[in-house]
Amino acid sequence: MPNYEREIIRIIRGNDTPPVMKDKLMAYHENSIAAALSDMSVSERQRLYRILDVDDLSDVIEYAEESAVSGYLEEMDIKKKVAVLTKMDADKAVLLLEQLDKKERETLIELLGDDVKKDIALISSFDEDQIGSKMTTNFIALHADLSIKQAMKELIRQAADHDNIATLYVVDDNNIFRGAIVLKDLIVAREGSPLEDLIITSYPFVYAKEEIDDCIERIKDYSEDSIPALDEENKLLGIITAQDIIKVVDDEMGEDYAKLAGLSAEEDLAEPLKESVKKRLPWLVILLGLGLVVSSVVGLFEAVMAQITIAVFFQSLILDMSGNVGTQSLAVTIRVLMDENLTGKQKARLVFKEGRIGLTNGLLLGSLSVVFIGFYIHFSQHATWQFSFGISVCIGLALVLALVISSLIGTVVPIFFKKIKIDPAVASGPLITTLNDLVAVITYYGLVWFLLIEVMHIA
Amino acid sequence: MPNYEREIIRIIRGNDTPPVMKDKLMAYHENSIAAALSDMSVSERQRLYRILDVDDLSDVIEYAEESAVSGYLEEMDIKKKVAVLTKMDADKAVLLLEQLDKKERETLIELLGDDVKKDIALISSFDEDQIGSKMTTNFIALHADLSIKQAMKELIRQAADHDNIATLYVVDDNNIFRGAIVLKDLIVAREGSPLEDLIITSYPFVYAKEEIDDCIERIKDYSEDSIPALDEENKLLGIITAQDIIKVVDDEMGEDYAKLAGLSAEEDLAEPLKESVKKRLPWLVILLGLGLVVSSVVGLFEAVMAQITIAVFFQSLILDMSGNVGTQSLAVTIRVLMDENLTGKQKARLVFKEGRIGLTNGLLLGSLSVVFIGFYIHFSQHATWQFSFGISVCIGLALVLALVISSLIGTVVPIFFKKIKIDPAVASGPLITTLNDLVAVITYYGLVWFLLIEVMHIA
Repeated sequence: MPNYEREIIRIIRGNDTPPVMKDKLMAYHENSIAAALSDMSVSERQRLYRILDVDDLSDVIEYAEESAVSGYLEEMDIKKKVAVLTKMDADKAVLLLEQLDKKERETLIELLGDDVKKDIALISSFDEDQIGSKMTTNFIALHADLSIKQAMKELIRQAADHDNIATLYVVDDNNIFRGAIVLKDLIVAREGSPLEDLIITSYPFVYAKEEIDDCIERIKDYSEDSIPALDEENKLLGIITAQDIIKVVDDEMGEDYAKLAGLSAEEDLAEPLKESVKKRLPWLVILLGLGLVVSSVVGLFEAVMAQITIAVFFQSLILDMSGNVGTQSLAVTIRVLMDENLTGKQKARLVFKEGRIGLTNGLLLGSLSVVFIGFYIHFSQHATWQFSFGISVCIGLALVLALVISSLIGTVVPIFFKKIKIDPAVASGPLITTLNDLVAVITYYGLVWFLLIEVMHIA
Repeated sequence: MPNYEREIIRIIRGNDTPPVMKDKLMAYHENSIAAALSDMSVSERQRLYRILDVDDLSDVIEYAEESAVSGYLEEMDIKKKVAVLTKMDADKAVLLLEQLDKKERETLIELLGDDVKKDIALISSFDEDQIGSKMTTNFIALHADLSIKQAMKELIRQAADHDNIATLYVVDDNNIFRGAIVLKDLIVAREGSPLEDLIITSYPFVYAKEEIDDCIERIKDYSEDSIPALDEENKLLGIITAQDIIKVVDDEMGEDYAKLAGLSAEEDLAEPLKESVKKRLPWLVILLGLGLVVSSVVGLFEAVMAQITIAVFFQSLILDMSGNVGTQSLAVTIRVLMDENLTGKQKARLVFKEGRIGLTNGLLLGSLSVVFIGFYIHFSQHATWQFSFGISVCIGLALVLALVISSLIGTVVPIFFKKIKIDPAVASGPLITTLNDLVAVITYYGLVWFLLIEVMHIA
């Protein structure tokens, strides 16, 4: 790929007159110009702000990296700030305004036009976990009683200010959502036919107050350009575009991914050290505390370890295996739980299935261990066959037990968290690790004590 | 939410005449009808196939769950099969055909029209890792030399067969991509103005042969309805819609997520036990083998353990901590590596940063451990202050060292894998766990041996 950013910066640093420079810049996509911003000096950026039309500049700002945008805005004069905010999609403008300090924000909002002010107030009224915070008011609404020709005319009128025209939304006099018209159908329709025939009354929708977690799985499956967001009275408030859905899916998955790795949020390269440490430390501190609990439990088996030191060698094996199996079950369960409509029966089926997977894997890996580790101990430690296979049978049995229990813990704990309205992904970090460690330690050393010391009197 | 699926099934089981039934069904979104399919009997589904228009039926089939679609197709007669495949987007048809057995597939392809055959051949020619396999040929192409009026007329002509009209693609006589026209601009344009003025020549594009991994991060940032895919000669082959991007982002993130959890692919609830076991077992078997290596290394410290049994109590703590820190670094690195344009300098910065995070967390957690564990051992084990803090200092130092090294391993290993063209996410499973275990075991018992036995002669 050519390096567009470098070319853009070269243009800005060049000696062309503003109109020539603008023409050259407009040959690049706004996203490329936005990407080049971070490599420009303040004065170069200010030159850019002066050269571009407000329309194009606001597009560039919409594409720019979220964390840098408020800084760019600060570099503009107040008139340009207001103009850029006015041209931006309201949801993007809200995100930007949130990053400014309170006084600056209030001054700017005061200066915005009434329409923009209203849109911003509407979108800010939703919590960032609600789908309404992701919607845009940039859509076209029509009345059902228009003729095809009138609808076309109305479309052209509204299209001057609204970009999202692939789907047109039909509302009644009270602004209640009635259905959608796909623009393609309107364009190919014969002029005489009634608009009514084009309206899809089964078009999907969401309520703006729905939690994103609760509706994203559903709406991402509709291959529509946009999906309307309604208020509690079924009035049309805004739309969620496919681009918004890409961003939300990316964010949601990224969050689950980060939590599975014991991070409190996603990180990127540009983030300062302090931020990264802050995201990672919480789980680690909790893990340290819980680790002490595991250590105390290990301590209870001091006598067993003293008598059969070789048992200690395989402790890490059992703990790693049960930890991994628990994480596998946890990861699958978190994903399955994203489907809100899961019945109790389905949850029970999931627990049962994970238990069976744990049992199957445990039996396979357990048998493998009995044979393999038995020979390993016999030959590496010059131990008797009885002692070697005594230990390896303990390891095999402990694996079966620990894997079944870890699978169940990895499934039941997140289901329980979800039930009491805690994000099941937080279970991923230390809690599951600790529980599985405890289970593994107790079953393993318990079996060694019972089988080798109590039953076989081997020590 | 109302239960649409149940309502749809009730309609199918009812006694309405076909036209009435069809009218009732068409009040639901195709996605809802698709979701209801799995709860119908074969004869109920066959009734549905007969009632719906081929156009609507193919939409329903496009929405149906991928794993079930070939089964549904089998239930139709050959004529309907061909009709449905013809109406489907070519990329979806390719996915479906791949699931059929070879003979059935060849027969069906033979019966398809030449246009459809060509599209299917084109899309099948790409590997499933290439972005070309996700594109659709359902787009509108215009020549640059048209007038606004002619372009509008051409649009209406092509729109009969093509759904994606929000962006129109401009090509020259050799079908070479020249730019894009946003439909909105065409609609609001004055009739006299030249079409040329509407063409965005800086519109983003991909080459169909690009690996999805390599371009998805780039294209998901363009807020466009669709992005054109070109061949090596810059000829326009197809487009990637925002809906395709949602699916690809979802799949890619899901894959990374699954791999981080040690699964070879994402799972869902409906999957049979055997499949799930197959996805989880490979990593576990490797982990078992590598676990034996760790066990052997632990075995090397038998003398240390025999002399200072209490050191064993804290083994799990050190291993868990270093494992978690390694996973955190790994998860961050995998995400950062998704950006293809990372320079060597940026990679070095990442390694350096992760090392510093490891050191910071290590120092914080290490100090905490020295104090906390020192008191804990003194009071719980009735040990001398010297012995208690001797052990806790070893634990603290081991934590600092292990955390720094784990962070570096969690960063360097995936960077290395990426370099030798292996998916860095595969590093997540057993390899990182084992390496970190080894590091933790050696630093911990090594320190205990050196400090407590060699230097302090405590044992």
